[in-house]
Amino acid sequence: MDKKNPLRVPKTEHKRVVIIGGGFAGIQLAKKLANTEVQVVLFDRNNYHTFQPLLYQVATAGLEPDAIAGPLRKLLENSKNIFFRMATVSEIKPDINTVFTNIGNLTYDYLVIACGSKTNFFGDPSKFEGAFPLKQIPQALDLRSHILQNFEEAVLTSDQEDLQKLLNIVIVGGGPTGVELAGALGELKKHVLPKDYPDVDFDNMNIYLVEGMDGLLGGMSDFADKHAQKYLKKFDAKVKLKTFVESFDGEYVTFKGGEKIRTNTLVWAAGVIGNVIPGLPDDCLERNRYKVDHFNKIKGTENVFAIGDIAYMETTDFPKGHPMLAPVAMQQGELLANNLKRLSQDKEPKPFKYTDKGSMATVGRNKAVVDLPKDVHFGGFFAWFVWMFVHLISIVGFRSKLVILTNWIWNYFTYDRGTRLIIRPFKPSQFGKLNKQEQPIK
Amino acid sequence: MDKKNPLRVPKTEHKRVVIIGGGFAGIQLAKKLANTEVQVVLFDRNNYHTFQPLLYQVATAGLEPDAIAGPLRKLLENSKNIFFRMATVSEIKPDINTVFTNIGNLTYDYLVIACGSKTNFFGDPSKFEGAFPLKQIPQALDLRSHILQNFEEAVLTSDQEDLQKLLNIVIVGGGPTGVELAGALGELKKHVLPKDYPDVDFDNMNIYLVEGMDGLLGGMSDFADKHAQKYLKKFDAKVKLKTFVESFDGEYVTFKGGEKIRTNTLVWAAGVIGNVIPGLPDDCLERNRYKVDHFNKIKGTENVFAIGDIAYMETTDFPKGHPMLAPVAMQQGELLANNLKRLSQDKEPKPFKYTDKGSMATVGRNKAVVDLPKDVHFGGFFAWFVWMFVHLISIVGFRSKLVILTNWIWNYFTYDRGTRLIIRPFKPSQFGKLNKQEQPIK
Repeated sequence: MDKKNPLRVPKTEHKRVVIIGGGFAGIQLAKKLANTEVQVVLFDRNNYHTFQPLLYQVATAGLEPDAIAGPLRKLLENSKNIFFRMATVSEIKPDINTVFTNIGNLTYDYLVIACGSKTNFFGDPSKFEGAFPLKQIPQALDLRSHILQNFEEAVLTSDQEDLQKLLNIVIVGGGPTGVELAGALGELKKHVLPKDYPDVDFDNMNIYLVEGMDGLLGGMSDFADKHAQKYLKKFDAKVKLKTFVESFDGEYVTFKGGEKIRTNTLVWAAGVIGNVIPGLPDDCLERNRYKVDHFNKIKGTENVFAIGDIAYMETTDFPKGHPMLAPVAMQQGELLANNLKRLSQDKEPKPFKYTDKGSMATVGRNKAVVDLPKDVHFGGFFAWFVWMFVHLISIVGFRSKLVILTNWIWNYFTYDRGTRLIIRPFKPSQFGKLNKQEQPIK
Repeated sequence: MDKKNPLRVPKTEHKRVVIIGGGFAGIQLAKKLANTEVQVVLFDRNNYHTFQPLLYQVATAGLEPDAIAGPLRKLLENSKNIFFRMATVSEIKPDINTVFTNIGNLTYDYLVIACGSKTNFFGDPSKFEGAFPLKQIPQALDLRSHILQNFEEAVLTSDQEDLQKLLNIVIVGGGPTGVELAGALGELKKHVLPKDYPDVDFDNMNIYLVEGMDGLLGGMSDFADKHAQKYLKKFDAKVKLKTFVESFDGEYVTFKGGEKIRTNTLVWAAGVIGNVIPGLPDDCLERNRYKVDHFNKIKGTENVFAIGDIAYMETTDFPKGHPMLAPVAMQQGELLANNLKRLSQDKEPKPFKYTDKGSMATVGRNKAVVDLPKDVHFGGFFAWFVWMFVHLISIVGFRSKLVILTNWIWNYFTYDRGTRLIIRPFKPSQFGKLNKQEQPIK
């Protein structure tokens, strides 16, 4: 390893833009800077971009990872000025314009923090050990294996209490992820799993969707909330509103007030927190997001930007910051690319203005809700079709579109889920002892 | 859990056939016994059947696991007399007609051992720690991640010695798996990886295929051997014949005679050994396979059978036992199903006779070799087409056929490999310390 240049990023006479994070914001920025007069270095801890809105379909055996993960090097192919480095950034030192990573340090002219968000267990993860977050592909695969293993064990279980532990699934958080996951699990319960497990009485399978507010799909319309609840009822999903979880120990989830539900499956879809990197002063932060001006520059810095979930920008439309959504991230990434180009031409940058094209959520087969701007709301089959279309065109890369479309058509017409595979070699067996095949593989 | 009947297999007045292993032999037998007058209980440690001939394509980022893994419950759907139990069998006690598993014990009327084979490191795995076997899906995924991680690290590496460690790949074993893997890696080297890693000099990437005999594709014709070698040369693969490996320490592979190659990637495709289960007397065994008569009954037992790789049957055509191949396994599974039916009707069972329909191997894009019975051999593009066709029709399940065909068409025309994802959350980083995302996921 070259001690002076451990990252082996070529020296350049152009400005160097370092981007941390290959999510929606980072990728959009990098692509818009492809083949321009700056050098771009993109860091991500994974070698792929994750299309998070469909993670729940990986968790419910509808898709394999390749459908929603795009290799970053592929996405940035043919961009001679972009250098990808797979690394974890540990610290930023803005006074010396340097980022520190597990593979070495690098100086920058402009730094763009696009690390997104991570699961937030209400500040105390120790109270929720054994809960399943759903932010990354390995987590989705782990949940898929866990659910299927529960059914394999349910076949062997006669004790009613033990059975409920295996067959109850509690989802915390009634936002789009929670609602869509509940719908997908409802479909598994209704159409897929009973064929696999004829010995299991599926009346015993309960899907709970728990939300602290008094409605689902917080950022969306009352129409969306009501229809989502109606659709979820068709799948027997049990919606518990104004309910707060207190703790989860792998056997019981305990709610505020003392009520308990027996389960070993608690899926956490209840909010996220900014994935902040050490190094900037604390007064840059507002509830774990970087306070940025209208050009996404972090307040108090000269050349450090934040885009996407991690950015907190107050505007007249959004006095408490923008929602942590993919469209915001993509629009900020695109605008910042243009503003960086303007800067290099000594032009004035343009302020960010979020164009809300609407929001939507699907609730199982044939059902979805869509909110468009100007109070246009609709649901049902047409909304479901719009949902599919929008997700298909949004996903990066033609191959992913093709894989997803093929899988969706297959799943729709066969009522099948082809990826119900338990691939979890490192996890101790549910059956009490470590199986041979579950030991680390050499 | 019901102590008396922990497996919750219903009591039956019919004969109970217990099958250990859901590979080619076990699945064929189970399917042919579907909806007949016996009760079938199938054990497998995984909940899926693995189409092993294409494992190497998972390892080389050409396919995701769902393409080659079929959920066993799906394959056996609508068979009311078949019960699948995901379990590891630890012992057989033939004197009390009982199998012991990690989830409980079960008695049988007929026992069929179809456990296949496992990787054999020439009897001493401690000499080959860090080698990559290629018999199971998690192993293939692990190899895929390892190879891609090596290239991510190669980007950072200037020292020539360190670089060779990352860019040399040594495959031990010149059978079909080794040859096909070498061809697939050759394609990655030639068509796919250079686009991803423009900074890496691919002249430094060496693919070694090491074989102890004086030719490749041992069971096949001289024609096949010569042509495979010719095709491999086009991909710059280096074939080393009459060469034996001595040891591998994760840094160097050492050959008999003392020669060493620097590499951290040794793929083991050099032979397998029967996956024997404790409990039968040692004189049932011949080189770790169960000695069976012409009806696949294990010698010295009354009601215990072995089929597939694990069965050692001497016939006039095969005085040293049959080759460990999928077609043998499937034909034995089918015949045993018919013989069990005949037994129940007090008819004479029929002896096994292997119908060899030929063998084949592909060597990268557009190239393959095919041996047919009666000394018909051909190679090149047409052979490659036959190879694809035969593999497509052989794989179980229409969904897998569809997924594989789609991927092959995509890979062929785009020179792309969509699944080049590093998904390996539990493995310590190559970069010396454990990354945060590489810690076990909660």
